[in-house]
Amino acid sequence: MGKDVKALLEQMTLDEKIAQLLQLATFFYKGAAGEGEITGPMADMGIDEDVVTNTGSVLGASGAKEVQNIQKEHLAENRLGIPLLIMADIVHGFKTIFPVPLAIGCSWNMELAEKSAEIAAKEAAVSGIHVTFAPMVDLVRDPRWGRVMESTGEDPYLNSEFARAFVRGFQGEDLTNDLNRVAACVKHFAAYGAAEGGRDYNTVNMSERQLRESYLPAYKAALDEGCEMVMTAFNTVDGIPATGNKKLMKDLLRDEWGFDGVIISDWGAVKEQIFHGVAADEKECAQKSIEAGVDIEMMTSCYPKHLKELVESGEVNEETINESVLRILTLKEKLGLFENPYRGASEELEAEVILSEEHRKVSRELATKSCVLLKNENVLPLQKEQKIALIGPFASSGDIMGAWSWHGRQEDAVQLQAAFKTKMDASNLTFAKGSDIETITEEQIQEAVSAAEGADVIVLAVGERADMSGEAKCRADIRLPQAQLELIARMKELQKPIVTVLFNGRPLDLHGVIDRVDALLEAWYPGTEGGAAVADLLFGDANPSGKLTMSFPYSVGQVPVYYNHFNTGRPNRPDAPDHYVSKYLDIPNEPLLPFGYGLSYTSFTYSEMNLSSKTLTPSEEITASIQVTNSGEMAGEEIVQFYVRDIAGEIVRPLKELKGYKKVWLEPGETKEVSFTITEEALRYFHSNLEFTSDNGEFHAMIGPNSTELTLLSFRLEK
Amino acid sequence: MGKDVKALLEQMTLDEKIAQLLQLATFFYKGAAGEGEITGPMADMGIDEDVVTNTGSVLGASGAKEVQNIQKEHLAENRLGIPLLIMADIVHGFKTIFPVPLAIGCSWNMELAEKSAEIAAKEAAVSGIHVTFAPMVDLVRDPRWGRVMESTGEDPYLNSEFARAFVRGFQGEDLTNDLNRVAACVKHFAAYGAAEGGRDYNTVNMSERQLRESYLPAYKAALDEGCEMVMTAFNTVDGIPATGNKKLMKDLLRDEWGFDGVIISDWGAVKEQIFHGVAADEKECAQKSIEAGVDIEMMTSCYPKHLKELVESGEVNEETINESVLRILTLKEKLGLFENPYRGASEELEAEVILSEEHRKVSRELATKSCVLLKNENVLPLQKEQKIALIGPFASSGDIMGAWSWHGRQEDAVQLQAAFKTKMDASNLTFAKGSDIETITEEQIQEAVSAAEGADVIVLAVGERADMSGEAKCRADIRLPQAQLELIARMKELQKPIVTVLFNGRPLDLHGVIDRVDALLEAWYPGTEGGAAVADLLFGDANPSGKLTMSFPYSVGQVPVYYNHFNTGRPNRPDAPDHYVSKYLDIPNEPLLPFGYGLSYTSFTYSEMNLSSKTLTPSEEITASIQVTNSGEMAGEEIVQFYVRDIAGEIVRPLKELKGYKKVWLEPGETKEVSFTITEEALRYFHSNLEFTSDNGEFHAMIGPNSTELTLLSFRLEK
Repeated sequence: MGKDVKALLEQMTLDEKIAQLLQLATFFYKGAAGEGEITGPMADMGIDEDVVTNTGSVLGASGAKEVQNIQKEHLAENRLGIPLLIMADIVHGFKTIFPVPLAIGCSWNMELAEKSAEIAAKEAAVSGIHVTFAPMVDLVRDPRWGRVMESTGEDPYLNSEFARAFVRGFQGEDLTNDLNRVAACVKHFAAYGAAEGGRDYNTVNMSERQLRESYLPAYKAALDEGCEMVMTAFNTVDGIPATGNKKLMKDLLRDEWGFDGVIISDWGAVKEQIFHGVAADEKECAQKSIEAGVDIEMMTSCYPKHLKELVESGEVNEETINESVLRILTLKEKLGLFENPYRGASEELEAEVILSEEHRKVSRELATKSCVLLKNENVLPLQKEQKIALIGPFASSGDIMGAWSWHGRQEDAVQLQAAFKTKMDASNLTFAKGSDIETITEEQIQEAVSAAEGADVIVLAVGERADMSGEAKCRADIRLPQAQLELIARMKELQKPIVTVLFNGRPLDLHGVIDRVDALLEAWYPGTEGGAAVADLLFGDANPSGKLTMSFPYSVGQVPVYYNHFNTGRPNRPDAPDHYVSKYLDIPNEPLLPFGYGLSYTSFTYSEMNLSSKTLTPSEEITASIQVTNSGEMAGEEIVQFYVRDIAGEIVRPLKELKGYKKVWLEPGETKEVSFTITEEALRYFHSNLEFTSDNGEFHAMIGPNSTELTLLSFRLEK
Repeated sequence: MGKDVKALLEQMTLDEKIAQLLQLATFFYKGAAGEGEITGPMADMGIDEDVVTNTGSVLGASGAKEVQNIQKEHLAENRLGIPLLIMADIVHGFKTIFPVPLAIGCSWNMELAEKSAEIAAKEAAVSGIHVTFAPMVDLVRDPRWGRVMESTGEDPYLNSEFARAFVRGFQGEDLTNDLNRVAACVKHFAAYGAAEGGRDYNTVNMSERQLRESYLPAYKAALDEGCEMVMTAFNTVDGIPATGNKKLMKDLLRDEWGFDGVIISDWGAVKEQIFHGVAADEKECAQKSIEAGVDIEMMTSCYPKHLKELVESGEVNEETINESVLRILTLKEKLGLFENPYRGASEELEAEVILSEEHRKVSRELATKSCVLLKNENVLPLQKEQKIALIGPFASSGDIMGAWSWHGRQEDAVQLQAAFKTKMDASNLTFAKGSDIETITEEQIQEAVSAAEGADVIVLAVGERADMSGEAKCRADIRLPQAQLELIARMKELQKPIVTVLFNGRPLDLHGVIDRVDALLEAWYPGTEGGAAVADLLFGDANPSGKLTMSFPYSVGQVPVYYNHFNTGRPNRPDAPDHYVSKYLDIPNEPLLPFGYGLSYTSFTYSEMNLSSKTLTPSEEITASIQVTNSGEMAGEEIVQFYVRDIAGEIVRPLKELKGYKKVWLEPGETKEVSFTITEEALRYFHSNLEFTSDNGEFHAMIGPNSTELTLLSFRLEK
């Protein structure tokens, strides 16, 4: 079986090959749901119907019927019968929406992360999609950037683990035959998360060593897991747009890492090299991108308009085009499209599997694990017989799915108010909106005051509109909108216990919130089952276990702040001999809430840390262990974290680097030993000559519930 | 004439050589003013009297008498009679304090900058100082960093011009024979200004290309001008502390740039490699720094304690020590210290030249040129017959000299209130403090209200205490202290014209200031003659001409913001086709006040830009010219600015790069042609292979009054 794609390539004309490298949005295609006006877009792009007929892939088509129609019309006209690849952004669920990736990050739960991707793949696959533009694994340190909600956080190790889990979930073990899976496309290569000023699409600059140390590992992990595609980033990397960056794609991805899958540009990024200022015209864009390694141009037409003349003039080698086409045909073959161009698309299966009870159940479970309890002063869990006032713009809102929930419908989402009614007698529940997201009136406040009047406890559901984070949704002020801060302040005046639930897409400056409330639950955008999951947690039917994977800054003036920073030569230690230390005059150096932080309704105590040896050698591992006890009164899960520090490296090493974690379930009073293996390999890093190796000498091994409360023991590496 | 320093070196023991590489603070030395307790400090450092006797240089001694005593005592005990080098931080004046360097930057006046350094050198030289730890030329883009006040700003070209001017001023043309000069020590090598988060001493990371393009030029310019010494920075550069960074010192400074002067560490920085985490102990610190190229260790004792054993074990080559010693001896010889170890030190000259009328006059002139008029809605200049209420914590304060004005005395400073009395009838002037820097009382407000009662205009003098900027003085909130914002708001209620004068050390977020006042003058810390200079400007005896050399951000959430940024692939241009552009949701991309901005009491109009040719070749320059007219009613100086943009580079080029400026004095109605020469050389930059070359193709030439109001013409480079 299997199509001979090399033979197919030989039959293709140069025009057909070049068109294969183009990706257009759905509305260009006959058979698409909104079919009709395709002449205008073609004219805008300077391409003709022949090009469209020969394109290799479609962006954003979905629904079994639409995809089947498009594919059918396409095959009817395509000379060689080459099927289209159908690609779309299925980032955190298709119709069953899961928590945003930053929330999934806080679960530290690879099994559920993988399961969420598997479900997303299944719903997408039956809807006719072949490739998802996910996972997004950009390392993030700046909460101003709107796309931090798409990342799993600030840690290279954890991001890498999630990258692998998502790829496994999307692709499964047999992409060719498992029609419920889709190919994954890791993005955005590279270092898109380091946009200067936290402003989307902005300049990225760092040393190659830093790039390799912090930013590249998660992309590499996705590829190691078999990820089929890579998408380029919009940003420059050291002055060269990622989409025309030979060093990143040709030298690193292809030659050093041996990646032979398809590289696609992000939307319009090939042509954006003109705006960047490295290409004078579309022809130069085409030449730079094809030579750097971009196989598919998305939504601009530099390739179809100029590659032919570049080949004919000898400026671009036809072999380069052939290689790109072959990669695309190979992916089509791997997805079985030559045999079954409709692949998993099925209207019957759509009806059956999409938003199924099982899918909702997993979404609810993952949402429960993704929420992070940030504060609790004896007010949570709520008692079901309490009189509760549920107040705030998110008290009854379906806008809890976050950006990139394309097919997620608000009407399918479980809202908080509805979920509360399943937990308690509705007559004990009062409700008020309190404010809108960015405005508040005295009337709204008075309604809220009335709603709270007879209540034992106020539950405030506040946050950012979903469209306040995501692509091109950056905020210079990372506080809650002023209107909601005022709502909190006014509710505080009532002198009743306040529980606040946050719905948002970035770490916020929580001043004016955390200091005014008795309990605070970070729900992020929890997805379709969000209200249900949050209610489970608030009423104690589930015990919070999430831990932050991105630091919450003290204020925006502290950004960037992240746990794995350097010590500096003048750390602001308590015993510092004078005031010439690295600090701010007005705020602490530490974030308001550190990486790894999160509370439970029970308490965990750590004791008796032990190292199996004080000396590590390349051939003999060390085991670091600790006793963890549930010292509270409720069963719960604890995420035990393991960090190391290299005391004197050839290059400065971070004060802490996460090297492992374990999730343990403990009944009240129960104690378990949790252990981590330390190998020489785990201590390697990129030295000044970019060699990946380790240093002899002293190291610290640290175990604890978050990145700041750690028990420490020393060992030495001796090679 | 001249000492044979090589012969001297041969006579030195290894111990003597190593001690020559140590610099200690004044209190270690016999003959120092505070002499007495030197046993304690020696014990703390683990060194003995022999080491002190053989040290090569002293930090912070000053005053002819003290220095003469120290040198005399030293020579009496030093076996080979090697004189001490006396070094100190003379940054913006010795006793006659000039505006802080960031203010001097805003003058764009190289002649006065040079003159200020010459005067500082003279006052320091007669006080016995041989070397000043200046100029500081770190490029700065983050106003949170306290040391931006020590830099001339964000532009590599302008910083380089100032670096040269300061070096010329300090060193003169004949350092050996001109006893009124001191050797200069450019700092902080390298890229100290790029501290992450604007937090002093923090990590610096960027690509080598970026380092060469933006951060290194000003250091290089200082060395090209003959600067005798270099001081290392506290920060890491790509993970390696600058003070142990072989690539920066050995490879770049020594080998590539051919610098053969003395390299000194910053205070304690050799030993701080332990805190950084690249050295396990002091011995490793010594080895790393000496091998990387640090000749003098300042105020820690890794060298005296460990270099001998390192030489004896063969880990460090004695030739390395010899080279360092020889550089130090050569500098001593160059300063004529072997013949006259007291050099310029003279109590009589101290009395004569320090704070002389002439020096004060230059300080006043430079301060006048350094202030920047940021807003003026028909209220300035003040009329001398007006009734004026002078209010605010800086209305009568000597704290107007800024950090690093070590010998500047507040009692020598001309305060604003005193200067006002020289301009107007004192009976028309009322005064109130209004608030303290960080606190305000209702009583203070009422006093201010009373003072303002009969006034025609309110002059508010507000700002930051001098110790709110400078080393280790970083602020995460860059607004005026809340108390003073309240003072402004309360004064605004009086509905009288308000003129505000700012005394501060960093660009501030001016919301709550600029929007509430009718005129705003940025005075920075203007130095000893500050009040007089500001009064000259406010009363129209001088016409403001300063222009900002560092952008004023819209808010701290916009940082870093600088004029010479990249375009991105999705610039937020007015005709952007959709909302997926590089922007913030809540603030503009543009700073509140851009680089190059500054108003005058007159107005200047620009017309008829012309290029002598549309084609530039390596052999034929182009001249860009423009007509500038004083279209107002007062004579004044305009700083005409010239920028270029490379439209399509091999590497992305900034949207604008300053390539020249001209200062023109225009009488009312007068027009002058201002022209700039464009050469191929000026268009070169570091390409991806680090080659310094230019690109053929289109360029923009732009001329105007600041970095945003520019007239533009295109030309092509054809090589």
